[in-house]
Amino acid sequence: MSADTTGLIDELRRALGDDAVLTGGDIGDRTRSDASQTGRHLPKAVLRPATVDAVATALRVCNAHRQSVVPQGGLTGLAGGASPQAGDFALSLERLTGIEEIDEAAQTMTVKAGTPLEVAQKAAEAAGFLLAIDLGARGSCQIGGNLSTNAGGIRVIRHGVTRDNVLGLEVALADGTVLTMLNKMVKNNTGYDLRQLFIGAEGTLGIITRAVLRLKPLPEGRATALLALASYDDVVRLLKRAQRELGGLSAFEAMWRSYFSVTAKAENIPLFAEEPDFAVIIETEGADQAAPLEAFLEGALTDGLINDALIAQSEKERRAFWIVREGLVMDRLPSIVNLDVSLAIGDLGRFAEACDAALKARFAEAYVSFYGHIGDSNMHIAVSVAGASEADLHEIDEIVYRIVAQYHGSISAEHGIGTLKRDYLGYSRKPEELDVMRRIKTALDPNGILNPGKVLPV
Amino acid sequence: MSADTTGLIDELRRALGDDAVLTGGDIGDRTRSDASQTGRHLPKAVLRPATVDAVATALRVCNAHRQSVVPQGGLTGLAGGASPQAGDFALSLERLTGIEEIDEAAQTMTVKAGTPLEVAQKAAEAAGFLLAIDLGARGSCQIGGNLSTNAGGIRVIRHGVTRDNVLGLEVALADGTVLTMLNKMVKNNTGYDLRQLFIGAEGTLGIITRAVLRLKPLPEGRATALLALASYDDVVRLLKRAQRELGGLSAFEAMWRSYFSVTAKAENIPLFAEEPDFAVIIETEGADQAAPLEAFLEGALTDGLINDALIAQSEKERRAFWIVREGLVMDRLPSIVNLDVSLAIGDLGRFAEACDAALKARFAEAYVSFYGHIGDSNMHIAVSVAGASEADLHEIDEIVYRIVAQYHGSISAEHGIGTLKRDYLGYSRKPEELDVMRRIKTALDPNGILNPGKVLPV
Repeated sequence: MSADTTGLIDELRRALGDDAVLTGGDIGDRTRSDASQTGRHLPKAVLRPATVDAVATALRVCNAHRQSVVPQGGLTGLAGGASPQAGDFALSLERLTGIEEIDEAAQTMTVKAGTPLEVAQKAAEAAGFLLAIDLGARGSCQIGGNLSTNAGGIRVIRHGVTRDNVLGLEVALADGTVLTMLNKMVKNNTGYDLRQLFIGAEGTLGIITRAVLRLKPLPEGRATALLALASYDDVVRLLKRAQRELGGLSAFEAMWRSYFSVTAKAENIPLFAEEPDFAVIIETEGADQAAPLEAFLEGALTDGLINDALIAQSEKERRAFWIVREGLVMDRLPSIVNLDVSLAIGDLGRFAEACDAALKARFAEAYVSFYGHIGDSNMHIAVSVAGASEADLHEIDEIVYRIVAQYHGSISAEHGIGTLKRDYLGYSRKPEELDVMRRIKTALDPNGILNPGKVLPV
Repeated sequence: MSADTTGLIDELRRALGDDAVLTGGDIGDRTRSDASQTGRHLPKAVLRPATVDAVATALRVCNAHRQSVVPQGGLTGLAGGASPQAGDFALSLERLTGIEEIDEAAQTMTVKAGTPLEVAQKAAEAAGFLLAIDLGARGSCQIGGNLSTNAGGIRVIRHGVTRDNVLGLEVALADGTVLTMLNKMVKNNTGYDLRQLFIGAEGTLGIITRAVLRLKPLPEGRATALLALASYDDVVRLLKRAQRELGGLSAFEAMWRSYFSVTAKAENIPLFAEEPDFAVIIETEGADQAAPLEAFLEGALTDGLINDALIAQSEKERRAFWIVREGLVMDRLPSIVNLDVSLAIGDLGRFAEACDAALKARFAEAYVSFYGHIGDSNMHIAVSVAGASEADLHEIDEIVYRIVAQYHGSISAEHGIGTLKRDYLGYSRKPEELDVMRRIKTALDPNGILNPGKVLPV
């Protein structure tokens, strides 16, 4: 970072145009932080390139001046990855937007990085396709950010993680070199798969400018059920059976009693006459899914694998199941901490017990609840400790991540590392891995201008 | 490469044991080449480590001596990637073999790199699972080689490429550092996804020692049909419809008339009364697939999308369809060249026409035929020119790859680059991409000991 940036700003204005360089009072307050609300610094300037060439130019000029750059998309991230550090320029992708092509034969969409996810989803749908990348922030988040965080979402069990839905990528490197790899092919074994480096790198290795995304046939219908189970082992057995018998399985969400009893009550949605220890939502996609789902549930009931089953008879009932699962009421609990971890599926039950015990041993009054995309080995933990201090909140993280490490799990299933999980990264990655990550960072961004302070522990 | 390797050999014998270091007459002739039969040099020594630690030790010692190492698995590769260059030591994975664990809840298999693919497939099947990685060489090829080449195969349309079936990886780096990343989770966003670097890198960045592979439920049945179509556009329309309507679609193989008319006659397998311009094999996996497949074909017939359909009534009939597709008789044609490319699905028809014209313009008597995994954008081209010289064979490659480049396609869909396609890599990858690949190679293997001369143009 150069202390006096006047010359640099002038050079950027000449290269990009005045409207692409915001400074001083023109910088909007929202550029201070992503949705983690942990950002503390406004960027010194906001660059708003409208073309790939302009992104490259902005980076080339910043790199020559050793000016650090934080890429910003929809600012919906939860790990601080898009929040500026002191002295950063922000590079906003909001003007690099639009769908360039839908190739119906290849079943691909070529899209600019700043396009909001929901815009891309709707364009796919209008052409008769499903863009399977999906998450709650769809209205605000942008494709470039989705890919940079490898954001997960709710269709993973059927359609894979975000990485699996990316066929081609264009990236601007720190020195302004553009790698245009807009591949539309499923199979392509021509040397190192450079796409993969940038997906999930949170803008520390390059800035994604365009992508070729896979499209799937638009499902013709779906069926949804809410089930009552007695144990986590039964949840795992049911998952395995569902994967075997339900060809269209598109969601398998488990909720521990500690979670759904609170959310269902708060939303005033009665579920079962008798509250079970586990509730599971199963959803299948495709034509005529009701009959196979009913047959599957009958079998599971007969075998004692589930104790009760509700099949959604309307979109309203289906939404009710999902409202319980989404649990927005949780955000009203005091000092709520949401953790996002993953572990081998068979371990999640014991892990939850260990977490619950450890958190309550330290914070006797803690509210601790578990839920998640079990079919993807992904668990979320909602913890609330009334009156918790900043140090208490860190201690909650620390307690959970220590247990994650014991189980060889991941401290971030979906949300990424950013700054918030950066200093815990060693719980999931070994020193040798961090060393290789640093070697790659140095190879691609020798001046360290791209999103410094993110992902890699200092 | 050190000219005098006596001291190095002694050091390796002390470190690894005498039985792990073969020299002189103990070196088997098969280590000279992979299945491309283009290898010209025996390795100066063959290292046969039986443990991960021994692989790491072998590399550490070789790296200290600047001794180049070519990893060798089942030697079934088709691009020369496992063939030694002059002065190389071979590092054979054949003693690093065995299945360490099948985790039924996580649906994963942890396996050592030297395990033959078919051994792993059978172990999965015995536990009630499908290991979806599959290719013709399954009896000889090894998991480490499959992953190092990202070998594709025949189940990709349903189960993804090899990369998609790898959850965890262990790799020994050039300096003997071991990255143990035996992740079992579907979602894991904790920094750079280093697994991806080594998959498809053909042993130039590290040597894969173990892997965690995804398992799928074992399909309970399948249905197969052979269809007659009039045009490539109809093939694409049928593919799209099959992907939409057949939930269990597991193969979609197209053959141009130039291909199946020869193979069907040679195998004496009559297909249709009247030879169509295109033949397609459709296969679906799952329980009770016959009825939905029949309904699908009836609809396609009614709409004029297909002109005829044969449904396999027995495993023998099914095999007959696949024998025509596998076309082993092609290997009896004089100077046969098999090319493996991929292009956007909508382009494959015009590409085939352009290739056919260009090859016949240069070689008037050429036999040129097309077939492939169309659903994966993957086409194979079989070309035979009687009496072709070495230079003619290169010219055939050159003619095809030039047209691939015009269509922004890939010169290697499945087989990898090795040495055979290395000097053509520029037809599919841009100078900026090659530069980044070299930077990564230098970052991970600064002495360049790992499989030198492969993948990257000199």
